[in-house]
Order: sequence, then structure tokens, then C-alpha cells
Amino acid sequence: MSEAETRNGTQSRIRPDKVSPHYQRAVELIGRRWSGGILSAMLDGATRFSEIRAAIPDISDRMLSGRLKELEADGLVERGVIPETPVRVEYCLTEKGLALQGVVETIAAWSRRWVDPSGVED
Amino acid sequence: MSEAETRNGTQSRIRPDKVSPHYQRAVELIGRRWSGGILSAMLDGATRFSEIRAAIPDISDRMLSGRLKELEADGLVERGVIPETPVRVEYCLTEKGLALQGVVETIAAWSRRWVDPSGVED
Repeated sequence: MSEAETRNGTQSRIRPDKVSPHYQRAVELIGRRWSGGILSAMLDGATRFSEIRAAIPDISDRMLSGRLKELEADGLVERGVIPETPVRVEYCLTEKGLALQGVVETIAAWSRRWVDPSGVED
Repeated sequence: MSEAETRNGTQSRIRPDKVSPHYQRAVELIGRRWSGGILSAMLDGATRFSEIRAAIPDISDRMLSGRLKELEADGLVERGVIPETPVRVEYCLTEKGLALQGVVETIAAWSRRWVDPSGVED
């Protein structure tokens, strides 16, 4: 009977744990189009809009602006206004954003080893 | 003059490296809606369609089927047909897919520490 059960297509032999909704939210937040790139550029030291844009080929001002607002809403990025003439705007990673350093590094290491260069426009 | 240059809004003080297109492709591949969850479930031992689906709340058969095909095309997942009666289909991670274990673990650790439970449906 237990043998029959294991062969029943609708019953699983094993029942893996449910994937954590926190993990799922995190991975989709980081992996949203452009967001992973923006986070990498900021971890690399970019703080101005023009610097972040320059680090990410093909991103438009509109997309970058929208993504920065989303990353701010998610608590990963803070926007600061420096009262100079002209006023200067800088974007900084929060503690939560800085804590993604290890994530970005492991993904970068995996991509160097496994992502086919032919499938990517350089 | 160099001072003037540093204050020119269109010139950056620093010029961070360009974000690697391989990294960007990798992070967006993993972070595509559901893909990170599917990879986590498979790293956790799920091999059958019904097991993977059970591990991911809210995913539809159609979405899971589409994502598995994409992950196969990306070389992360292999689909095997076991000649039993009835025929049995199993999905396995390739070496490239298994190599994402560290990535999934660091994202999971970050999410446990930083993702607000109130923003996630459990």
C-alpha cells in the first residue's frame, strides 16, 4: 500500500517545504528589470543619477527614475538633497540595501562562471 | 578647472565600472516572477510538477509549465521522462542550476533578516 501511494501521480513521495514568501518577495525585488543592476552600481560607489545611469547600458532616465523611487519605497535606497548651488541630489543605500552586498557578489560570481557571453550584448 | 569639472552636473567625480551584462542577465533570470521560487523548491528536492506546484502558493499550472520551459531553455533545468506505466516526468536541476544553491541561500538569509512580514501574504 505504501508502494501504491508512492506511485500515485497525485501524491508526492516527498513534500518539500513551501517556498518562503519572504524569499520569493526578495528575489523578485532584486531581480526586477534593472533593479539588480542599479543595486550593483550603487554598491560599487555610484551615488548620483548620472553615475548610476552611466553604469547601466541602455537604461532610460525614465526607467531609472522609476526604479529609484521603487527602491526607496522598498527601503533599500535613500534620496538626499544637498543644499548647494545648484542643489545636488545623491542616492545612498540604506543598511538594508548595503546588506545585499553578499547577494550581489554571489550572483556576479555565478554569472561569471555560467552565463553564456554569446547570449548577452556587451 | 578640475574643481569646475567636478561640479559639472553632467560629469561624475567617480565613474563606477559598468555593471556586467552577465550579472544583469543572471539576476533578472533568477528574479523573474516565480523563477526564484521554482529554483528554491527544486534545490529543496522537488522533482515532480505537482511537488513544485505544491511548494509555491498561488502559481498556476500554466505559469509553472511556462517557467519550467524557460528554465530548461536557459540550461538550469532538465526534463526527464521515466518509461513507467503511466509515464512519469521528472524535472532535475543541471549543474548550472545546482550552482545557484549559494545564491538562493544568501537571498533567503537576507529576506529573513530584512523583508517585512507585513508586506507579504503568508
